[in-house]
Amino acid sequence: MAQEKRLVEEITPMSVDFAQWYTDICKKADLVDYSSVKGCMIIRPYGYAIWELMQGILDKRFKELGHENVYMPLFIPESLLNKEKEHVEGFAPEVAWVTRGGSEELTEPLCVRPTSETLFCEHYANIIKSWRDLPKLYNQWCNVVRWEKTTRPFLRSREFLWQEGHTMHATAEEAIEETLCMLNVYAEFHEKVLSIPVIKGRKTDSDKFAGAEATYAIEALMHDGKSLQAATSHYFGDGFARAFGIQYTDKENKLVYPHQTSWGCTTRMIGGIIMTHGDDSGLALPPAVAPIQVIVIPVAMHKPGVVEKATEIADRLRHAGIRVKVDTSDYSAGWKFAEYEMKGVPVRLEIGPRDIEAGQCVLVTRHNREKTVVSLDAIVEAAKERLEAVRTGLYEKALANRNTHTYDCRTIDEINSSLAEHGDGFVRAMWCGDEGCEDEVKVRTGVGSRCIPFEQESISDTCVCCGEPAKHLVYWANAY
Amino acid sequence: MAQEKRLVEEITPMSVDFAQWYTDICKKADLVDYSSVKGCMIIRPYGYAIWELMQGILDKRFKELGHENVYMPLFIPESLLNKEKEHVEGFAPEVAWVTRGGSEELTEPLCVRPTSETLFCEHYANIIKSWRDLPKLYNQWCNVVRWEKTTRPFLRSREFLWQEGHTMHATAEEAIEETLCMLNVYAEFHEKVLSIPVIKGRKTDSDKFAGAEATYAIEALMHDGKSLQAATSHYFGDGFARAFGIQYTDKENKLVYPHQTSWGCTTRMIGGIIMTHGDDSGLALPPAVAPIQVIVIPVAMHKPGVVEKATEIADRLRHAGIRVKVDTSDYSAGWKFAEYEMKGVPVRLEIGPRDIEAGQCVLVTRHNREKTVVSLDAIVEAAKERLEAVRTGLYEKALANRNTHTYDCRTIDEINSSLAEHGDGFVRAMWCGDEGCEDEVKVRTGVGSRCIPFEQESISDTCVCCGEPAKHLVYWANAY
Repeated sequence: MAQEKRLVEEITPMSVDFAQWYTDICKKADLVDYSSVKGCMIIRPYGYAIWELMQGILDKRFKELGHENVYMPLFIPESLLNKEKEHVEGFAPEVAWVTRGGSEELTEPLCVRPTSETLFCEHYANIIKSWRDLPKLYNQWCNVVRWEKTTRPFLRSREFLWQEGHTMHATAEEAIEETLCMLNVYAEFHEKVLSIPVIKGRKTDSDKFAGAEATYAIEALMHDGKSLQAATSHYFGDGFARAFGIQYTDKENKLVYPHQTSWGCTTRMIGGIIMTHGDDSGLALPPAVAPIQVIVIPVAMHKPGVVEKATEIADRLRHAGIRVKVDTSDYSAGWKFAEYEMKGVPVRLEIGPRDIEAGQCVLVTRHNREKTVVSLDAIVEAAKERLEAVRTGLYEKALANRNTHTYDCRTIDEINSSLAEHGDGFVRAMWCGDEGCEDEVKVRTGVGSRCIPFEQESISDTCVCCGEPAKHLVYWANAY
Repeated sequence: MAQEKRLVEEITPMSVDFAQWYTDICKKADLVDYSSVKGCMIIRPYGYAIWELMQGILDKRFKELGHENVYMPLFIPESLLNKEKEHVEGFAPEVAWVTRGGSEELTEPLCVRPTSETLFCEHYANIIKSWRDLPKLYNQWCNVVRWEKTTRPFLRSREFLWQEGHTMHATAEEAIEETLCMLNVYAEFHEKVLSIPVIKGRKTDSDKFAGAEATYAIEALMHDGKSLQAATSHYFGDGFARAFGIQYTDKENKLVYPHQTSWGCTTRMIGGIIMTHGDDSGLALPPAVAPIQVIVIPVAMHKPGVVEKATEIADRLRHAGIRVKVDTSDYSAGWKFAEYEMKGVPVRLEIGPRDIEAGQCVLVTRHNREKTVVSLDAIVEAAKERLEAVRTGLYEKALANRNTHTYDCRTIDEINSSLAEHGDGFVRAMWCGDEGCEDEVKVRTGVGSRCIPFEQESISDTCVCCGEPAKHLVYWANAY
């Protein structure tokens, strides 16, 4: 088997070098490739298919909630970016600038959009005139650019793909409701579709989006105990509206400012899947976003009738709406097992001559290698049941891991000893609300505030840092 | 009716000022808006929904033919763009350059992709090693930038959306077959889905894509007698493969170069729809890409039961897979008629108290205002039949227009007199194959070569320009 180019041994084990393990999966599961464009990635067909499935599910949900897709320009003139002061201060240090077009120097540099609030605001100023024009519920699927210094595929790259929702509302209440509604859409998508448990909460002021009144996020704990900010939703109040002169005539014929939100999620979610569900055999995909849900592997392929039966079963599964592939290539069955484990295919279907004789086949779930012998008569129902078992199994496994690595701490010392003893994870500790204490926790323990969770509890009455009365329970962690 | 902001009279008639008529439709049908980014457009929800429908149909077709979607970086380093000589000469004059990232000057400028051959080639050099790796059938949906001097929405803008297919094949024959297959996909999409008749043909050498061995295109005649290049498909031979060092080991264990194609279509197709089907009442959309296929307008809405019946009918149509909207806003029925004609909705359904009593309603097709009274019992079948009538009706109307404006000419004088007498259109005339003659026809008549059609005929034995023996029938026209 000279063709067996790829073996499981080639992956660096997670315990040896987590970063290398991550990169190995990105490359060996054919998700990405590098190019000569530093910090940008090539998303290969298998990786892009995952993104398309994510897009399909989210886009449908956004539209059900009344959102419409639009497309704004890639470029933002410097003067437009400068209109909202906090926003430009937040983004200017990390944008790419176009200064030449054709053979001419531009009179005004254009930045490549790092996010599109300014463009949406300029457009909204044109089209929002009356209360009848509200709400505006727009979304955009596009690429954005942020000139990061250190980059990693999916997690942090100079260009990435995302969606950015930008909405305008008559009242603050309605805008806040939208902000939280979309955070819930992201949370539900992570928990029910991607099988990733998340903490929903509000960012502290030091960690707000540039120009926002409040930023909400969902945070997920990765295998290495670091937190991943998986999606964000921002409430802007009328700050941008004032900066961009967006005003409408309300029902009482008064000229007033509308209230605004934005919310987004990115290709980073693919990194989240890798670091939540992956293991030393490779990727493990939640069924709803798996390009191949069931891989059919004929065993003893040369025996008469095996390939035919495998193909027939695959057709039945496909007909039932399952994404299925039969691998009849001349690699060994063992090689194929390893290959599709690497690619994270949720369910493997093995079928050989003896199975056919017995009218059965074997289903193996990727995340726990559980084998089930099932009758061919009931294969469609069995495959569906196994896929659902992967979805819930992945979630339970991830939740158990998070629970093991969540530490309730009352003092700085407790934080340090918990992290030293059990490894990185979520630290739950009380906070007085003072930014000085937030900074000091970070300096003295290494973990920063991730969010003030919606589900508040009182672990103690005093701030973990200064001992003054506590205001909030906060999740603290190292983060991507 | 103070709310009636928009009236049909606001559009400039086509006969008065064609360019203004076009722009008026773009704006008043809510397809685009302008921003402060010169030469770039905002694609508004109604326009973007048309693009999404186009994408959906084409993407499905591409995938059926075995293509996979990928995503390549937005940027191309200058040195990479320079690798294929003809390619860089063709594109360098019209690209935008990023020269600064964050606060640093870049050591090497990055151009914003005008097209991605160079990026695909670099990637293919990494992943194509053996005959087993071929063919590679990749496609990408993305934005591209070309620094145009004069711009118009959809037709020519500094940024536009498109798909670019890039494929690699073992043999020249296979690559040529792919090139022509994809041209046929575009032609069929235009004729059967967009109801736009097209001429399929090969571009003359002077009009080839930069770096291609052969460029094929579909050309469509617009209302003003100008030709629109609606999509292109290129055969590259192994030129890029040699420039980028893409080699594979064939079945005989020899190191050889693969053969390449690329093919694309863009948001420009929306411009093609406007200028093929639109009229002085606005846009007219082919049903398959119409965001609203049937607009239900209740007449005498205040009468009891009218809105309820309209909604019930809409539900039945929606249930049958038709994209339908009921307009129950407080604008007058007349205003609504004009509004949805402007937006090009293929079929209008009018229903009032008397219709309800008679168990019927009125269907009006947008392109010819034909009224049909149909029984409510058979409304689903009737609506489907009317939508199909719009699809074929639009095509026949466009074909008749093209036939009226296609002139067979044997001399330069005949070209000039035909154009003077009947207005702009397709000139069919023989050509000797000499580039000098091609240029001279353009200088003396104003029309340039559009393509050498696959369907050849002999109009005369001699070149329309020099009188030497003719080699090809050529379509000539003014073009967008």
